[in-house]
Amino acid sequence: MTASDTKWVYRFGDGHAEGTAEMKNLLGGKGANLAEMSNLGIPVPPGFTITTQVCTAFYDNGEHYPEELSSQIDEAIKQIEEIAGMKFGDPEKPLLVSVRSGARVSMPGMMDTVLNLGLNDETVKGLAKSSGDERFAYDSYRRFIQMYGDVVMGLEHHDFEDILDNYKDDNGYLADTDLSADDWKEIIVRFKASVKENHDDDFPQDVNDQLWGAINAVFGSWESARAKTYRNLNDIPSGWGTAVNVQAMVFGNMGDSSATGVAFTRDPANGVNELYGEFLVNAQGEDVVAGIRTPQNITELARKQAGSTEPSLEALMPETFKELVGIFDKLEAHYKDMQDMEFTIQDGKLWMLQTRAGKRTTSAAIKIAVDMANEGLISQDEAVLRVDPASLDQLLHPTLDPKAERDVLATGLPASPGAACGEVVFSSDEAERLKGAGHEVILVRVETSPEDIHGMHAANGILTARGGMTSHAAVVARGMGKSCVSGAGDIKIDYEAENFVADGRTIARGDIITIDGSSGEVMKGAVATIKPELSGDFDTLMKWADKERKLRVRTNADTPNDARNAVEFGAEGIGLCRTEHMFFEADRILAMREMIIAEDEAARREALAKILPMQRGDFAELFEIMAGMPVTIRLLDPPLHEFLPHAENEMDDVAKSLGVELSQIKSRVSELHEFNPMLGHRGVRLAVTYPEIAEMQARAIFEAAVEVGKKTGNPPIPEVMVPLVAKKAELDMIAERIIAVANEVMEESGTTIEYQVGTMIELPRACVTADKIAERAEFFSFGTNDLTQTAFGISRDDASRFIGEYTIKGILEVDPFVSLDVEGVGELIKIAVEKGRNARKDMKMGICGEHGGDPASVTFCHNVGLNYVSCSPFRVPIARLAAAQAAILANKNS
Amino acid sequence: MTASDTKWVYRFGDGHAEGTAEMKNLLGGKGANLAEMSNLGIPVPPGFTITTQVCTAFYDNGEHYPEELSSQIDEAIKQIEEIAGMKFGDPEKPLLVSVRSGARVSMPGMMDTVLNLGLNDETVKGLAKSSGDERFAYDSYRRFIQMYGDVVMGLEHHDFEDILDNYKDDNGYLADTDLSADDWKEIIVRFKASVKENHDDDFPQDVNDQLWGAINAVFGSWESARAKTYRNLNDIPSGWGTAVNVQAMVFGNMGDSSATGVAFTRDPANGVNELYGEFLVNAQGEDVVAGIRTPQNITELARKQAGSTEPSLEALMPETFKELVGIFDKLEAHYKDMQDMEFTIQDGKLWMLQTRAGKRTTSAAIKIAVDMANEGLISQDEAVLRVDPASLDQLLHPTLDPKAERDVLATGLPASPGAACGEVVFSSDEAERLKGAGHEVILVRVETSPEDIHGMHAANGILTARGGMTSHAAVVARGMGKSCVSGAGDIKIDYEAENFVADGRTIARGDIITIDGSSGEVMKGAVATIKPELSGDFDTLMKWADKERKLRVRTNADTPNDARNAVEFGAEGIGLCRTEHMFFEADRILAMREMIIAEDEAARREALAKILPMQRGDFAELFEIMAGMPVTIRLLDPPLHEFLPHAENEMDDVAKSLGVELSQIKSRVSELHEFNPMLGHRGVRLAVTYPEIAEMQARAIFEAAVEVGKKTGNPPIPEVMVPLVAKKAELDMIAERIIAVANEVMEESGTTIEYQVGTMIELPRACVTADKIAERAEFFSFGTNDLTQTAFGISRDDASRFIGEYTIKGILEVDPFVSLDVEGVGELIKIAVEKGRNARKDMKMGICGEHGGDPASVTFCHNVGLNYVSCSPFRVPIARLAAAQAAILANKNS
Repeated sequence: MTASDTKWVYRFGDGHAEGTAEMKNLLGGKGANLAEMSNLGIPVPPGFTITTQVCTAFYDNGEHYPEELSSQIDEAIKQIEEIAGMKFGDPEKPLLVSVRSGARVSMPGMMDTVLNLGLNDETVKGLAKSSGDERFAYDSYRRFIQMYGDVVMGLEHHDFEDILDNYKDDNGYLADTDLSADDWKEIIVRFKASVKENHDDDFPQDVNDQLWGAINAVFGSWESARAKTYRNLNDIPSGWGTAVNVQAMVFGNMGDSSATGVAFTRDPANGVNELYGEFLVNAQGEDVVAGIRTPQNITELARKQAGSTEPSLEALMPETFKELVGIFDKLEAHYKDMQDMEFTIQDGKLWMLQTRAGKRTTSAAIKIAVDMANEGLISQDEAVLRVDPASLDQLLHPTLDPKAERDVLATGLPASPGAACGEVVFSSDEAERLKGAGHEVILVRVETSPEDIHGMHAANGILTARGGMTSHAAVVARGMGKSCVSGAGDIKIDYEAENFVADGRTIARGDIITIDGSSGEVMKGAVATIKPELSGDFDTLMKWADKERKLRVRTNADTPNDARNAVEFGAEGIGLCRTEHMFFEADRILAMREMIIAEDEAARREALAKILPMQRGDFAELFEIMAGMPVTIRLLDPPLHEFLPHAENEMDDVAKSLGVELSQIKSRVSELHEFNPMLGHRGVRLAVTYPEIAEMQARAIFEAAVEVGKKTGNPPIPEVMVPLVAKKAELDMIAERIIAVANEVMEESGTTIEYQVGTMIELPRACVTADKIAERAEFFSFGTNDLTQTAFGISRDDASRFIGEYTIKGILEVDPFVSLDVEGVGELIKIAVEKGRNARKDMKMGICGEHGGDPASVTFCHNVGLNYVSCSPFRVPIARLAAAQAAILANKNS
Repeated sequence: MTASDTKWVYRFGDGHAEGTAEMKNLLGGKGANLAEMSNLGIPVPPGFTITTQVCTAFYDNGEHYPEELSSQIDEAIKQIEEIAGMKFGDPEKPLLVSVRSGARVSMPGMMDTVLNLGLNDETVKGLAKSSGDERFAYDSYRRFIQMYGDVVMGLEHHDFEDILDNYKDDNGYLADTDLSADDWKEIIVRFKASVKENHDDDFPQDVNDQLWGAINAVFGSWESARAKTYRNLNDIPSGWGTAVNVQAMVFGNMGDSSATGVAFTRDPANGVNELYGEFLVNAQGEDVVAGIRTPQNITELARKQAGSTEPSLEALMPETFKELVGIFDKLEAHYKDMQDMEFTIQDGKLWMLQTRAGKRTTSAAIKIAVDMANEGLISQDEAVLRVDPASLDQLLHPTLDPKAERDVLATGLPASPGAACGEVVFSSDEAERLKGAGHEVILVRVETSPEDIHGMHAANGILTARGGMTSHAAVVARGMGKSCVSGAGDIKIDYEAENFVADGRTIARGDIITIDGSSGEVMKGAVATIKPELSGDFDTLMKWADKERKLRVRTNADTPNDARNAVEFGAEGIGLCRTEHMFFEADRILAMREMIIAEDEAARREALAKILPMQRGDFAELFEIMAGMPVTIRLLDPPLHEFLPHAENEMDDVAKSLGVELSQIKSRVSELHEFNPMLGHRGVRLAVTYPEIAEMQARAIFEAAVEVGKKTGNPPIPEVMVPLVAKKAELDMIAERIIAVANEVMEESGTTIEYQVGTMIELPRACVTADKIAERAEFFSFGTNDLTQTAFGISRDDASRFIGEYTIKGILEVDPFVSLDVEGVGELIKIAVEKGRNARKDMKMGICGEHGGDPASVTFCHNVGLNYVSCSPFRVPIARLAAAQAAILANKNS
C-alpha cells in the first residue's frame, strides 16, 4: 500500500465502527475493542483510533507524520461532532474529547490519558452553560490543565497539587468537594500562571493545538525511558508502536447521578465467577485507577464481604446496575474470556469506555480457564492456552506458614497474592540499587506510578498506603507476579524521615517486614513460609496439558532435594545432572585438589579413587529418586582452575592440608590460568587430557546403577553425557573409555547395565557436523547456554555491560540468555537436528540449557522436533504447560 | 572386499610387477616406484611390498595381522628365491633381504631400513662361501646385528659403537677397513653378548623370526612418537599407514667394484639441469645417507666444482656411469619430474633401489618447474602445480647482506639455503625449550637423526659437523625450509663441555652464530641480512599463476611499511587494516586512555578529537600506497581494557599524565575487567556503546580519502568494515552513523566519495543469519580466526594447553588456527556464502583471517566461491600460487 492510499484513522460510535476486535495490531487493544463494542451495539462514546502504523511511520520517518493524517483526523472529528451534536472548540456547546494511548497490549509507562480536552477560557463558559453546572465546568477545566500540563507539557504533578493544597489550607477546605466554581476559577488562574512560569509559554487555548499536543505526547511516550523499560521487561518489540484513541468525553462527575468505575466479570484475584468491581460517584475514571479516593463496591455481595458501609452500585442505581450486568455478560460471552471494563454513568446514562481481557493472578487464570472449559464456554485445549506458562512461577513461590507467629502491623487490600519479605525501602531507585547489591527489598509507597516500574521489578513485594485493587500498584504487581498489599491506609509514610508508622510503631528504612498479598497483612520481621499447595484446578489443567504435549519434560538436578522437588512437579527424568557441584563439597574438594596438583597419572588416579565412593553414593541416591526414569549425567565440565583457591592464604591452607609446598600450589594455579576460561581447557578436553577422571566418573555411574538395580529391582538407565564436543573424534575417544568401564563393571558385578553414551551439542561446530557426531552419539542434549555464548560470541559473565543496552536500543528484542534466539541459535539447532537425524533416524534429542524452562524456547523445541526439554525443578510445570500450548498451536496451524 | 580375498602382498622384479606407480596409496611411494621401475625394465632386485592396508588393518584390529598375510608372504619369498636363485635361510647360498618402510610420502621418524636380513651363525658361512669373501660376509653379519639390534630390538646404537671403538682402540685400528674377517667374528660375538645382556634374549637365529621382527618394527614405528611428531608437523593423517618393502639384498660393499649412491636428476639446491649425486665405493646405502663417511661426486663436473680430489663415478666406472645416466634420463622422462634415486653397484652390476620425486629447495622447485615447462616436458599449468605454495616462504626470508662483515668460523656444505642466526644449542630438547621461551636458536650437532626432528623444527637453522648434502640434516632441513650447513668437518663439537671449537676459537652454548645455508659459511655473531631478490623464474611462475587464478589476493596491513612490502609481493589491495594498532603508538595512547576514562560522551569526543588528525594521517598514507586499489578498514575491535595499564606503577604514570586520581584509573580498570575478553565488550559492541568512536574513525577515513583524492587524482575506495556483528540490527545502527559521517564529509569537502560499508563475518550467528546481514552489508569479510575460536569454543590464547595433544592423539588432523577447518568452520562459511548471495547476488566476499595465507585454506576459499583472500604481506605470493593451483585443479576436476 502506498502512503497516499493508507487509512490512518478508524472511526467508531453510534452502533457502527470501521474496525473490529481482530484488528488489535493496527488499532491497539483499546481501539479494537471500542470498535467491537460499537459493532455489538453497546453504548460507546463516538470517537476514532489513529493507528499503530502512524506511530511506526512517525519514527521511521524522522518523527514526521504521514501527510494525509491531518485531514483524516479532521474528518473523524466532524463525525464525532455529528453524532454528539456538539462542536469541537464551540464556545456555546463545546465537544470535549479524551485522548488515550492504546498499544497491542496494555502498557504502563506510556502516556495514558488526557481527559476534557477541548476546554479553554472560552469553551469552559459554554460547558458551564450547556451542562448547567458552572462548578463542574471549571472543575473539569482545572483537571484538564492539570492533566495536560503533567502528561503533555511535562510539568510536575506536584506543582499543581501544591497550588491546590495551599489554596485549600488558606481557605480551610478539607476536600476537593468543598471548592466552589469560583474557587476553581481562581485555581485555574494559578494553574495557568504556573504553566507559564515553568513552561515559558501559555497554556494552549486553541483546541486543535491541544489535540495535536496530546497526540504528540502519546506517540512521544512510546519511546520514553519508562515505556522502553516496560517493553524490555515484557519482551514487547518497539516496532509494534501504539495507537491513539480520541473519543467524545462523557462525565462521571456531573453530580450524584453520575459515576465512574471499573469491573471484572470474574474475580481477578482468585478467579471466582462473581462480578467484581469498584466505582466512585461523581468522579472521573482516573480517580478510581489512581487510587486517590478509596472506591465503593459494585455488588451488594462484595460490599458485604468487604464489610464496607459505603453503598454498592447495585443499591444506589439498580437500573443502571442491571444494564451494566447485561453488558458484562454479553461481553464475556462474546469474548469468551474474563473482561476488565471501564464505564461511566453520565447523569444516569451508561457509557462503556473500555473492555479487554482482564489481568488476573495465575491461580485466577487457572480457575477461570478450568471453569470456562467446564461451563462449555471454551474447549479444554483453549483452557490450556489461556494460562501464561511463565506465570505459573508465582504459584510455586512460598506462602506464609499458617503456624508461624505473625506480628501484624496493618492490613491492606490483598492486591497480588504470595508472601514476600525484605528490607523496607521508600524509593524505586533505592530498591533497584539495593537489589543490585544483593538485598531483598519491599517497596513501600503512598501510591505507585509508572515511574516506579523499575523499583517494583526490583522489589520482592510492594506495599502502598493508598489505592484499591485496581490501582496502579495492584495491576502492575499482578502482572509481574509480585506480591502486593495496596491501600493499607493505616500506615503513615514519611518519605523525609524514611520511615512509616503503623500500629503505633515506627518502621524505618532497612527494617525487615513481610507482606502477604493473599490476605493483605503487613507484618513486622521475617515470617516463616511454606511451599504452596497446588489447587485441584491446577492439577486438572496440567492433566489437560499433559494429554496434549509431545515433549517430555525432565529436570536439571544435581542434588537429591532438587530431584525430589522436580518429581513432585512432574519431571519425567533428569536431563542434566552436573557433576562438578559434587566435587565442591567440603569432603571432596581436598581430594579434587590433590588430583589437580598431582604430577602424574598414577597420583591422579590415587586421588580419584578417594572421590569414587562419594560420587557413586551421589548417583545411587539420584537413581533411587528417579526410579525407572532416565538420568543424564554430564561428565566434569569446568576448567580445573575453578577448583583451586586463588587467594594467597587459601592457597597456603590447601598446601598445608595436602602436605605440599605453597609454591607447588601457586605454580599449578598460574599454570592453569586462562585468558578465556569459557573457551578453555574444559569439557571433553579435560577428559582427553585426563581420561582417568572420565573413567572414575563412569565407574561411579555404572557401579551406582548396579547397586540401585540390585537394591530396588528397578535399575536406572544412565545416560552418560560428554560435554563440549566439537568433533566426533573427541567423543570417540571418550566413549570408548566409558564403554570399556561399563564392560568392566558388568563383568565385575555379573550384571547387565542398560546405558547410553551421548553428547552435549553446545558448540556451533558440533551443530554443523552433527551428522558425523551422531554416528557415535546415542543422544544429543543441546546446551543452549554455551551455544548462545559461542554463536553470539558473547560471554555471559561479561554481557551485563552491554546486553541491557542492546535490548534498550532495540538491537536485541530479548536477552538471548533468557529466551532462545530462534533466528540464530535456533537455526544452528535446526541444522543439528536435521543432520543428526539424517545419521541416526530416531535419535533422542533434548535441551538442557536454562532455556528449557522458558515458554517461547519450549515452543521452539517442540517445533524443531526435540524429544524433551530439561529445566530447573520449579520450572517443570511451566515447561509442561508451554509444551502443551506449543503442541496445540502447532496442531491448530497445521 | 572381504578380508579373505584381500591381496595384502604385491610382488615385483625381473621386469614385471603386480603394482604400478599409480598405486602409491596402497604400496607406499617406495613400493609403487619399485613396481614401476620393474615394469619399465630397469634392474631392480626382486621383492615384494606388504600394503598399507595391512598397517591399517593391524591397528584397527588390536594389533593383529590379517590371517592370510603369512601365506602370501611365504609365496612372495618363494618368488624372490626363484628369481635370485638363492634360498632364504639356506646355509649354503642364503638369500638375504632388506626390509624397508614406505609410506605414501617419505617420512623421517619411522623405522627406515634393515639390511642383510637372513644372516645368522649358519648362513653367514654360506655367504662367505658363495661370495668368496669371508670378511664381507662377517662384516655384513655384524652390520645386520647392529642395525637389527638398533631398529628392531630397540638397543642403543652407541652400545654397538662402543664395542667397535673399544675393539679398534685395543687393536690399534683406525678405520673399519682395518678389520679382518676374524676381527668381525670377534665383534659379532661381542655384539651378540651385548644383545643378550641388554635384551634378555638371544639375537634371533631363525630367518623367519628375523623377517617378522623387522615387519613388526616397521608397522610399530608408524605409531612411534617421532613418526607422530613428523605427521603432525606435516599434516599426514595417521590413517594412511605405511607399507613394508622386502627385497633381495644387493651389495655395494663387495669390494672396489661395488659401490652405492644416491643421485638427483637435477640439482636439488638450485634446480640447475645437471645430474647431481654422491656415492661411496665398497659401502652400503646407509653409509651415504647417514653421513658417516663423506661421499664422492658422481660426475666429473661436480667433482671439479666441489674441488674434490676423490675420483668421480664417471671416472671410476665409466660404463656403469653411462648405464646409470641412461636410467636417470628414462626415469625423469617417464615421471616428468626431477628424480631422487638410490642405486647400488654389486661387483660391477647396477641395481636401482629407489626412485622418487626429489625433494628440492623452493628456488630449485621453481627453476625445475619453469625449465620443464619450457622444455615442453610439462605444461605451464603443471609447472604452477609443481611448486608447494607454502614453501615460497623460504624465498622471502632474508639472506645475508653481502656488504655485512663476516667473521667466518668454518665452512660446510650449503645444505639448505637461507641465512639464520641464533644462540648455539647442542640438544634438540634444549632447542625446543629455549624456542618456547622466546629464544632464537641454531641447533649444532655432529649429525642429526630422526630423534632431532623437534629440535630442528624449533631451531632457526641447523649446523652439523658430519654428513653430505643428502644427509639426514640436509634432507630434513630442506623439507622444513630451514637454513642448514652440513658436514662442517672443521668444527669440533664437545657435547659434554657444551661448546665447539672452530678456527681455533671456542663457541659456547648460548653464543650467537650465523649460518648461511646458501654458501655453507658459519659465522661468529649476528650478521646483517637483506631482503632476497626474487629470481626471473619466480616472476615467470607467478605470472603463469596469476593468469589462472580467480581469487584476488589482498594483504592484511596496518602500517605503510607492510603495505609497501605487500604491493611488491603483488597484493591487490588491503583486505584488513586493523586500526587498534594505531592507537597504541606512543603519541596517541594517552588520548586513547583519556577517552576511556572519560565520564561522559562530551569528554570522550574531546579526547577523540585529538586522535582524529593522526588517524586521518595513517589512512591517507595507506591510501596513497594502495592507489586505485580497495582498502578495507576495520573499526576498533579490542575491548577497551586492552588500552589501559594493569600494573600499579603504570596506572600511576597514566593518572599523572592525565591529571586524574589514581583511584579513577583503578576503578575504570576494574570496571572494564572481563572474564572472557574474547567474548566481551568489543567489536561492534563498542561502537554501539560509544558510537562516537566509530564516528571519529569514519571521519578520519573519509577525510583521508578526500585528501588523497585531491592530491593524487586517484581517490581510493575505502571499505569501512564493522567487526564482530552477530545480528543485522547492530550493523544497521553503526552503518547509519558511518553513512551520516560520509554525507557530512562530502558536504564539507564538496566532493563525492565512493565507499562501501560491510562487515566481518566471524561469529557463527552471523553465518547462519548472513541473508539478513547481507541486506545491509555491502561486503563480507570472513574473520576466520574468531570464527574458528567461536565455532570450536576454543580460545586461541589458551589452546596451547591441549591443541598439541589433540593433534598428537589424532583428534585434530591439523591445528585449525593454522589451516582452516573445512569440515566445521568451512561449513559455516559455506552457509554464509550461500545465504549472503541469496540476499545480495554479486556480493563481494573475502577472508581476512590468518588462514588467507595458508594454501589449503586458499583452496577452500576458491572452491566456496569467495572473491579474494587477504593475508600478511610475506604470504601474498603463497596465496597467489595457491589460488592458481586451486583454480587449475578445480578446472581439471570439472
